[in-house]
Amino acid sequence: MTEIQEITKALIKFRNDRDWEQFHDSKNLATAISIEAAELNELFLWKSVEDSEKVDITKIKNELADIFSFCFLLAEKHKLNIKDIVLDKIKLNGEKYPVEKAKGTSKKYNEL
Amino acid sequence: MTEIQEITKALIKFRNDRDWEQFHDSKNLATAISIEAAELNELFLWKSVEDSEKVDITKIKNELADIFSFCFLLAEKHKLNIKDIVLDKIKLNGEKYPVEKAKGTSKKYNEL
Amino acid sequence: MTEIQEITKALIKFRNDRDWEQFHDSKNLATAISIEAAELNELFLWKSVEDSEKVDITKIKNELADIFSFCFLLAEKHKLNIKDIVLDKIKLNGEKYPVEKAKGTSKKYNEL
Amino acid sequence: MTEIQEITKALIKFRNDRDWEQFHDSKNLATAISIEAAELNELFLWKSVEDSEKVDITKIKNELADIFSFCFLLAEKHKLNIKDIVLDKIKLNGEKYPVEKAKGTSKKYNEL
Repeated sequence: MTEIQEITKALIKFRNDRDWEQFHDSKNLATAISIEAAELNELFLWKSVEDSEKVDITKIKNELADIFSFCFLLAEKHKLNIKDIVLDKIKLNGEKYPVEKAKGTSKKYNEL
Repeated sequence: MTEIQEITKALIKFRNDRDWEQFHDSKNLATAISIEAAELNELFLWKSVEDSEKVDITKIKNELADIFSFCFLLAEKHKLNIKDIVLDKIKLNGEKYPVEKAKGTSKKYNEL
Repeated sequence: MTEIQEITKALIKFRNDRDWEQFHDSKNLATAISIEAAELNELFLWKSVEDSEKVDITKIKNELADIFSFCFLLAEKHKLNIKDIVLDKIKLNGEKYPVEKAKGTSKKYNEL
Repeated sequence: MTEIQEITKALIKFRNDRDWEQFHDSKNLATAISIEAAELNELFLWKSVEDSEKVDITKIKNELADIFSFCFLLAEKHKLNIKDIVLDKIKLNGEKYPVEKAKGTSKKYNEL
């Protein structure tokens, strides 16, 4: 069993123990990801980039874990292999952001 | 090398090839996660729960991959082990949502 | 003084009394809007559309007020007239969503 | 008719001309606000606070107008008076953030 499968198995057990699958449709899971992402952002709100790096790592850890959890659950729901989808997206992004154009700039692909 | 390490390695290579580490402070990465999460949500906007399950899987795959990518990059930046942080959070959530109270309800822990 | 000017004046007073203008750059204000929007979304999370309409109106009121507050502050910062920008956007959206194509459908303009 | 009533009237007309009220339940409107807020945030992503202030004002104007539009529509749906809800929230926030404690600091109320 890979690490991702182990994590997913633990998340599914937690969910099933509570009979929560009924709430976990794709639309609600997507909203849950957004809400957890906002809680992560709140850790850095009003802070400078420098002070943001001094935020308590336990807080970052907890919020990031929540985002990951709903992402893994949504991926599992659709039987998506995380490694495959990320590597596929890297390939796509490589076409949108070719090194020679994108190097050292944060411009969006449609402005390169 | 675990799957997560492989994915992370590919993401880091993509980032470094473009000299983008300079933009990837924690605060901006958190914002990027939020933005990608919103793009995932847009796939389901105005749709019923049923119709949301019929959304083109390629679109879900691509948006979810973007969220995962920034999550993996933020985790790597802070040397967080994904499996550890998710399992730790499951433990914490188990205390907030004990099975006997949380089973079958979507209430928030402070309303249980 | 228009209603919007009155609201804005009260928000500015609140902000200035606390010497918070220093934190209210456009980027942080935009993040604050997102975070408050997520808190609004959390009221409806895991709920059906029907049950979402039964959420305590006081909670909706409070979260919506927070979103409005940061929106008004960002508008004021850029000296934007709310009525003008919304009416201008309605005009633009009218071109993207002509009645004869958009009527009764929730499709995005690039799919009409 | 107040300015806010005029704006709301124009938004309602736009919506009704397209028979879109059927999609505008509270839950979807809240998600729409979040998505538009993310588009606003994207204007500032990867940018420093300084460069964020140089973003094309037309883009800020358009994204902010979208957020306002869905906020006004949600307020109208629940017959909320914007001025009342914002002034009420300012009062509440005044208790959470008393001047003598909150002045000059961006700390959250539970950390003051």
